[in-house]
Amino acid sequence: MTDLKELGEFGLIDRIRQATPPPVHSETIRGIGDDAAVFDFGGDEFGLISTDMLLEGIHFDLTYVPLKHLGFKSIAVNVSDIAAMNGIPTQVTVSIGMSSRFPVEAIDELYEGIRAACDAYKVDLIGGDTTSSRTGLTISVSVLGKVPKDLIAYRNTAQPNDVICVTGDLGAAYMGLQLLEREKQAYMADPNMQPELSEERSYLLQRQLRPDARTDIVHELRDMGLRPTAMIDVSDGLASEIMHLCRQSNTGAVIFDENVPIDDQTHLAATEFKISALTAALNGGEDYELLFTVRPQEFDVLKNHARITAIGYMTADPSQIILSTRAGQHSQLRAQGWGHF
Amino acid sequence: MTDLKELGEFGLIDRIRQATPPPVHSETIRGIGDDAAVFDFGGDEFGLISTDMLLEGIHFDLTYVPLKHLGFKSIAVNVSDIAAMNGIPTQVTVSIGMSSRFPVEAIDELYEGIRAACDAYKVDLIGGDTTSSRTGLTISVSVLGKVPKDLIAYRNTAQPNDVICVTGDLGAAYMGLQLLEREKQAYMADPNMQPELSEERSYLLQRQLRPDARTDIVHELRDMGLRPTAMIDVSDGLASEIMHLCRQSNTGAVIFDENVPIDDQTHLAATEFKISALTAALNGGEDYELLFTVRPQEFDVLKNHARITAIGYMTADPSQIILSTRAGQHSQLRAQGWGHF
Repeated sequence: MTDLKELGEFGLIDRIRQATPPPVHSETIRGIGDDAAVFDFGGDEFGLISTDMLLEGIHFDLTYVPLKHLGFKSIAVNVSDIAAMNGIPTQVTVSIGMSSRFPVEAIDELYEGIRAACDAYKVDLIGGDTTSSRTGLTISVSVLGKVPKDLIAYRNTAQPNDVICVTGDLGAAYMGLQLLEREKQAYMADPNMQPELSEERSYLLQRQLRPDARTDIVHELRDMGLRPTAMIDVSDGLASEIMHLCRQSNTGAVIFDENVPIDDQTHLAATEFKISALTAALNGGEDYELLFTVRPQEFDVLKNHARITAIGYMTADPSQIILSTRAGQHSQLRAQGWGHF
Repeated sequence: MTDLKELGEFGLIDRIRQATPPPVHSETIRGIGDDAAVFDFGGDEFGLISTDMLLEGIHFDLTYVPLKHLGFKSIAVNVSDIAAMNGIPTQVTVSIGMSSRFPVEAIDELYEGIRAACDAYKVDLIGGDTTSSRTGLTISVSVLGKVPKDLIAYRNTAQPNDVICVTGDLGAAYMGLQLLEREKQAYMADPNMQPELSEERSYLLQRQLRPDARTDIVHELRDMGLRPTAMIDVSDGLASEIMHLCRQSNTGAVIFDENVPIDDQTHLAATEFKISALTAALNGGEDYELLFTVRPQEFDVLKNHARITAIGYMTADPSQIILSTRAGQHSQLRAQGWGHF
């Protein structure tokens, strides 16, 4: 008997992928192993589908996650997978398993957030499933999207010397989680306490509770006529995503730690929690920013973009995925990712 | 506060549908309210998507459901929704939430069944999500399919005088569940007992544990050049599905109880359990047969089909959904469906 913990999530995905026979349909363009699967139902564009499951006690804690935000987030994390293929989301299905302890009003609140996200990302809610649950709240979302065939961005098509770019900033969602967990502990010790979640922390909380998918960047890249050579969304932390791009593209990489974009609130909270802000960015996860590569000669148009930062470049040697410090030190990048099991 | 139990599953779906704004994408052809949602990504055929969530303790009991069968069933029930649109399934995504108490070998077994179903229905497994679960096993499947635009079968397009047909036989899956539940009770009372599930019961068990989706009928109808005027799959019991067709098509119906196809094993088990076999067929559910209507003048080609039975006809008065007995008695059909909540 093999322990699931030992194999880990990525090991399990590899095992499933290796046991999956090649597609029988010519319409199946790309299966397991990217942010979304790719199909071709005719027409000018590829179809995209991705799915994510959120489980109570694993992905969210209802003691501090408002249902409306949870609904929004469940859509946003799926939309992010479509954006990571350089695609535009079009429809979602939402399946909910919930205990009858929830009043109907709670379900309304959850769907209010779902609808707010559908509105924000211009996707149609077209189906799903509702069922009772003996255990916790379960949310499973599938999202459909489209991308012009010549604009699709896979994970395995980066090349040496490509510039590695990331949108927004990283590590904030993880620090938001730390804040919420601390409040929860304090509340459990003293239910009469007043929450200490001040205005100065609002960005961190928003990043954790109500993350945004970067469809804006997909539209902007198209407007600039720029096609990323490879792309992935940052859901498990920058280190893990860089390693996915490198492994699948058969490249190495150099990342300059001083270039990794980190918000001031993240720095402040990291200091308070005695965590390195860089570690939060590299291994925290749930940022839902886009990590992508562009040809060096095409990077010029992005150089002054306010929400896109160049953090390094791809190299030819897949064994070398290097974090380079300001002081000139080099170390191999390591991914912790999420130890679900 | 409104109790979820009071609203019920169909009430909840109605509530969600009513709160869902109209689609913003012209590619969205049909949203919530049919067996699958319909989209048009260009090309000659419509795309179909459907999703179903199976939760431990609600939809299956691992004390008697083998994981391999469960994997097969999780695909089959989704494929059945595509068949119910007169479509052919093409791809699936599978999300699994499981406790780390499962050894890797258990996951392999589950996926063995999933792959067997993918092979049987010729669908490609193209993606999904794997996560740990604090609670029970959770399986969420989404399926994509295709249907030529002029062959799609909705629920709301039946007309008065259309002949109501059903494939295969009904009520067997429900009797299979009764047998399994009885064995479980006996086993819990005496763990040394030998199971009494004999050969003569094998059909009932197979119908419950490893149901088949009727894609064969979809192909046959196409070969015969016959397009159903409306179609739905029998997942919640014949009565509930008849009422969906009538409500959505704004028709009434007459069903002749003696015509409802019931297998001999179902009759035998029903006698033993002191249940009416007809009640098992009407309200048992999980048969995954197809219920469809055809124009009366087109019914001739189906008359001698071994696996298709005419059970009644549509009428003009939506308030009259009638069960007609051999003795000439009439009663309003009632749907119990599944009281999840």
